[in-house]
Amino acid sequence: MKALTIGKIGSPVNLMDADKPIASVGHSIVKLLASALNHRDIWITKGMYPGIKEGAILGSDGVGELDGRNVIINPSLAWGENEAVQSDDFEVLGMPTDGTFAEYISIANENIYDKPDHLSIEEAAALPLAGLTAYRVLMSRCQAKSRDKVLVTGTGGGVALFAVQFAVALGCDVYVTSGSEEKISKAISMGAKGGYNYKNESWYKDVETDFDVIIDSAGGESFQHLIKICKPGARIGFYGATLGKYQNLNPQLLFWRQISILGSTMGSDQDFRDMLAFVTDHKIKPIVDQVFSLEEGRLAFERMEAGAQFGKIVLKH
Amino acid sequence: MKALTIGKIGSPVNLMDADKPIASVGHSIVKLLASALNHRDIWITKGMYPGIKEGAILGSDGVGELDGRNVIINPSLAWGENEAVQSDDFEVLGMPTDGTFAEYISIANENIYDKPDHLSIEEAAALPLAGLTAYRVLMSRCQAKSRDKVLVTGTGGGVALFAVQFAVALGCDVYVTSGSEEKISKAISMGAKGGYNYKNESWYKDVETDFDVIIDSAGGESFQHLIKICKPGARIGFYGATLGKYQNLNPQLLFWRQISILGSTMGSDQDFRDMLAFVTDHKIKPIVDQVFSLEEGRLAFERMEAGAQFGKIVLKH
Repeated sequence: MKALTIGKIGSPVNLMDADKPIASVGHSIVKLLASALNHRDIWITKGMYPGIKEGAILGSDGVGELDGRNVIINPSLAWGENEAVQSDDFEVLGMPTDGTFAEYISIANENIYDKPDHLSIEEAAALPLAGLTAYRVLMSRCQAKSRDKVLVTGTGGGVALFAVQFAVALGCDVYVTSGSEEKISKAISMGAKGGYNYKNESWYKDVETDFDVIIDSAGGESFQHLIKICKPGARIGFYGATLGKYQNLNPQLLFWRQISILGSTMGSDQDFRDMLAFVTDHKIKPIVDQVFSLEEGRLAFERMEAGAQFGKIVLKH
Repeated sequence: MKALTIGKIGSPVNLMDADKPIASVGHSIVKLLASALNHRDIWITKGMYPGIKEGAILGSDGVGELDGRNVIINPSLAWGENEAVQSDDFEVLGMPTDGTFAEYISIANENIYDKPDHLSIEEAAALPLAGLTAYRVLMSRCQAKSRDKVLVTGTGGGVALFAVQFAVALGCDVYVTSGSEEKISKAISMGAKGGYNYKNESWYKDVETDFDVIIDSAGGESFQHLIKICKPGARIGFYGATLGKYQNLNPQLLFWRQISILGSTMGSDQDFRDMLAFVTDHKIKPIVDQVFSLEEGRLAFERMEAGAQFGKIVLKH
């Protein structure tokens, strides 16, 4: 079967002829119809992950066919029983365990769910990893609720866009930050109330200090300013930190105002079920940036690396 | 009546002859039998609080007599309905509202509770502010539970000692940090399993990285190390930061491991009720360092400033 695999560190993905997987006990073979890219896939090809396994099939997001029904795959493997945190056996699908950028996958039955009816194959393929990550950080960790004022930083990325969509669906007043006016405008067309361009380094100074929830993946020096625009009792959830370490955080602004800073990654089985139900109830459609074929994998990776996408980059198999 | 009041900023407390208060609607006049000092009182005399009101009566902790029964006062004034955070009207008793370092106090009826029977007047006076602060950060914010491994930094301070006592009573494995071997030994005699002397700047390097809960009030540069000794899913609660801003926090250690950093201050009415019930159920006795008379107020303040106390400094009226 065709598959996109990891080459030498720093080299692009390879389109390979791989063996069709054989199902072990408790697993099924799903014929994959579409998949989607995540930043994780790029970082792996660059060697920015521990334990890179050359030749492994990449891909965390997948939709396919099993026994005549369309299914969607939960990429959180072996989360375990504790809702608060993943088990020691936890893995994200797609390296070291062979992922979804292939014609077939062997996957644990507990990770297989019915595809929501209102989504096309391509839309559903865009959902799993980014949707799950957004759902957990926004809903399970930050406990966002209707009428909360929510800021999502770095709109345009997959998780951030789902956070915007979920918060809008929940009835929150949603604002975004971006370095691109065009991305801010697109977020507003999705229901956001407004946005701030972080290329203006003092953007936070003109912002009302009344956010109930902030969802961040940038971190770095500017994280300190997020604290300043929070309301007392606010929750700041984060699932990444592309700009690195937090500096100069003022504890007095945090403890006196009962603020919570909540780390989050991926999500539990319960989060995945809840996310599918939420997406189905609210008829939420993932934003698909562009669709490539599996054979065009390298082009898809190049588009992601260029960072110009708005929404998810999908592979149709 | 006699009372300890704020003089000019930077000058010690004054023993004054103040007017006996008159009860307004919804308030009662409590004849105070004992009170206790908090760092807040010291900081106010040094002008380290906003809105210092010269001549106001200090003191947040008080036990007294009302209609023939012994009562204990909740120093959280006007917390409001939201458990997550205090209202805009919230105040800590004792500046600007006249406090407990006096013979009488006018206090809202909703802040008056029966004194727990198992406590002496002096022990009960040691409980309110520090006990409430410890209860909220440990129980309501960090959700400590039996068998959790808990670290309390800076043992010796009032809140830290209550955090140790409450966590021990809850069935946690409790460890402490201190700059004093004697304070560590005392904490162990109270049921802590061990302690680390932070005068050894690399104390955290020999520590197993498996704390479920950390309670901190130091902050500063060394806060980054607390993150390293946390277990995945851990909660770090803090109610102060005497060493200032947080620096060099590594977000990757936080989000991948689902760690929560939780600011906390004082506590709600519900926290106060729960704290009294917990103290009563577990027959917890506050540690009293030394008892002074109201007239000896300046000596009591000097002892607190010297920082040599272990437990609460109490005034007997």
